[in-house]
Amino acid sequence: MLALHDTSNAEAFLADLHALRQIGAFKTGVHRPTYTPQDMESRRWIMERMREAGLEPTMDGIGNILGRGSSTGPRLLAGSHIESQNEAGWLDGALGVVAAVHLAKAGLPVDPIVFADEEGHYGGFVGSRSFTGLLPEEEIDRLTNRFHGKPLRDALREAGLEGLPRMQLEKGRYKGFVEMHIEQGRDLENKGLRVGVVTGIVAIWQWKIVITGQQNHAGTTTMAERRDAGLTAVRLLSMIDQEFPRHCAERTVWTTGRITLDPGGQSIIPGRAEILFQFRDIDIDVLNRLEAVLRRCIQESNRREKCPAVLERMSAATPALCDPTIQRCLAEAAEQFAPGKWQQMPSGAGHDAQYMAPHMPSAMLFTPSINGISHHWSEDTSDEDLMLGFQVLAEGARRFLAA
Amino acid sequence: MLALHDTSNAEAFLADLHALRQIGAFKTGVHRPTYTPQDMESRRWIMERMREAGLEPTMDGIGNILGRGSSTGPRLLAGSHIESQNEAGWLDGALGVVAAVHLAKAGLPVDPIVFADEEGHYGGFVGSRSFTGLLPEEEIDRLTNRFHGKPLRDALREAGLEGLPRMQLEKGRYKGFVEMHIEQGRDLENKGLRVGVVTGIVAIWQWKIVITGQQNHAGTTTMAERRDAGLTAVRLLSMIDQEFPRHCAERTVWTTGRITLDPGGQSIIPGRAEILFQFRDIDIDVLNRLEAVLRRCIQESNRREKCPAVLERMSAATPALCDPTIQRCLAEAAEQFAPGKWQQMPSGAGHDAQYMAPHMPSAMLFTPSINGISHHWSEDTSDEDLMLGFQVLAEGARRFLAA
Repeated sequence: MLALHDTSNAEAFLADLHALRQIGAFKTGVHRPTYTPQDMESRRWIMERMREAGLEPTMDGIGNILGRGSSTGPRLLAGSHIESQNEAGWLDGALGVVAAVHLAKAGLPVDPIVFADEEGHYGGFVGSRSFTGLLPEEEIDRLTNRFHGKPLRDALREAGLEGLPRMQLEKGRYKGFVEMHIEQGRDLENKGLRVGVVTGIVAIWQWKIVITGQQNHAGTTTMAERRDAGLTAVRLLSMIDQEFPRHCAERTVWTTGRITLDPGGQSIIPGRAEILFQFRDIDIDVLNRLEAVLRRCIQESNRREKCPAVLERMSAATPALCDPTIQRCLAEAAEQFAPGKWQQMPSGAGHDAQYMAPHMPSAMLFTPSINGISHHWSEDTSDEDLMLGFQVLAEGARRFLAA
Repeated sequence: MLALHDTSNAEAFLADLHALRQIGAFKTGVHRPTYTPQDMESRRWIMERMREAGLEPTMDGIGNILGRGSSTGPRLLAGSHIESQNEAGWLDGALGVVAAVHLAKAGLPVDPIVFADEEGHYGGFVGSRSFTGLLPEEEIDRLTNRFHGKPLRDALREAGLEGLPRMQLEKGRYKGFVEMHIEQGRDLENKGLRVGVVTGIVAIWQWKIVITGQQNHAGTTTMAERRDAGLTAVRLLSMIDQEFPRHCAERTVWTTGRITLDPGGQSIIPGRAEILFQFRDIDIDVLNRLEAVLRRCIQESNRREKCPAVLERMSAATPALCDPTIQRCLAEAAEQFAPGKWQQMPSGAGHDAQYMAPHMPSAMLFTPSINGISHHWSEDTSDEDLMLGFQVLAEGARRFLAA
């Protein structure tokens, strides 16, 4: 076996990553929706790579693959997902999976894991939820493909997974979990950095705001008589635009993804407005503070306006914080291989790691996304940054296992 | 023949109005979409009433009906439409048609006219545009029903109108045109008034505003990096909300009927926003001033924001001013029958009269709409106000014919 930091380890990792890119190739990206023949081919391919690394791979009844190693002593779980969004990038998920296999191949006591359907063709985080006991059989009965409606049960049967047992996380087996992933934003690139040590995965607090006015004729109803739900929506969103910057943290983001005015005719005063609004942060105190600000904005809107606004919570997750010790080990490794060219940063997107974090020390490592592109076939990271990221991951894992 | 102001004239008018209400009755309103059996039955019914009034009615190839009288001397054209919106009110259109017939029946030299499809089941103002030479055969070939798509040609054939000639306005025959109509707003009711003498029909200036941003991930894209087309839309609409009240006239109205954020996902920063915006006024100078304000808002948005906004004109009609002499005659009549209980006011909605105004002195008289309800089966006006309106219309017409 080669020494851990022999560059041929990183080169072999990169070669396998490019080999996997051929399965379901689409332009410069890949098209491997969960449980399709392309996805299943990639799963069989990665199991072959696990065997080459001396591991014993098992695929379970939901499509998760775990490659168990046999060495004694402290052991890491590492991985990500292998399916892609439709006509999407070659690295999202695949990067963390191939890196995990090559950590083992490079001699580290690592069990690589491949989670199924992180991308949500059927349900979102289906594999990591199954692995941690959060996916009951009744939910599997109910889930369908969000693009074409095929029941998950049918997809599992066609993929040959029906009747297989579902693996569960073996308590006490792992000292921690690591997931390598592309950033999916352009913060690293903008700052000329090459590695991101993730501090945690932000929580999304998602809201629906419904404003009730009175639908009316846009010509015969005077301005004073109107109860225009759309206008109240604009004023409320403008207030949020003024207030949130006064209370947010450095990396807080907030987004209005949809505004629906009902009925939406050009000559009709909207009788109803519906807003989809969310904010994200890694700090539960910041999230709580922003909820209070949002509620004050709604309250003030209801004091000023003729159209009442009602706030409805759609989801409010808990931020998943990365383990400080793994973070420190990854940071030391980053400084060793890329001095001054790395930073600590939160993950604004969700990842399988957030489902591991409640069960064991977990952490993530980011590589830059060129132009910040994500969920598109043109997604990319330079080969140099991919290899550097692998080296930092391997050294960080070594340090943590030894800590 | 009875004297013009014998109350039995107004009572007969009211009785016929209630009789017409039975054709296509729906709850307390009517359902008479253009060219349906119910609509055609109402057309045959009104032709019978014209004959009773000593007129010679003709229905033409688009469904317009003109009841020609034979007396010599100055003559008025009067009328409205008889079809309804779907499941709508009993007075909208029908009021002006029945009033016109009863002006003739009461002895005034009036030709009643029934315009087809003012309500736009097929095209909007189909009849009044046909009568004034603004409806080419090619447009008839092209028009379809906006609810179920039936070609206008098919509807005309099924209604037995195919092949009939289309009547044109006979130049010089009329001294003017009058149309009685419900207000469709609640301005009269709010002020405790019973009659409105219309000063003109407002013009609608309709705009589309397209804002281009960059679609992106709502978690991984920092606030500073974003080009959020939806946020720019909110800020622009907020600016319009601030600026328009500084430049509008007393009865100006402006409305945002639709805001579309693209793609509209809850976790996606909108890459495009489309706004449907309109303003209405009776004064061309006010309209021009508001266009300048709107353009300055767009210009300022483009100075401040990262997402460019482009303004596209969808329509810009000319306001149709009511004839001052007819207005004066109607005002004198209103003061005679309802002293202190009437006002001059613009029409915020479009009417057949706007197509007559370029060809002869034209005017309108409004009766109050209870609760301002329009285009709904619960639309209503009290019998007392209907009769009063008819008396004012008759006396105003008499004064104008004698002027």
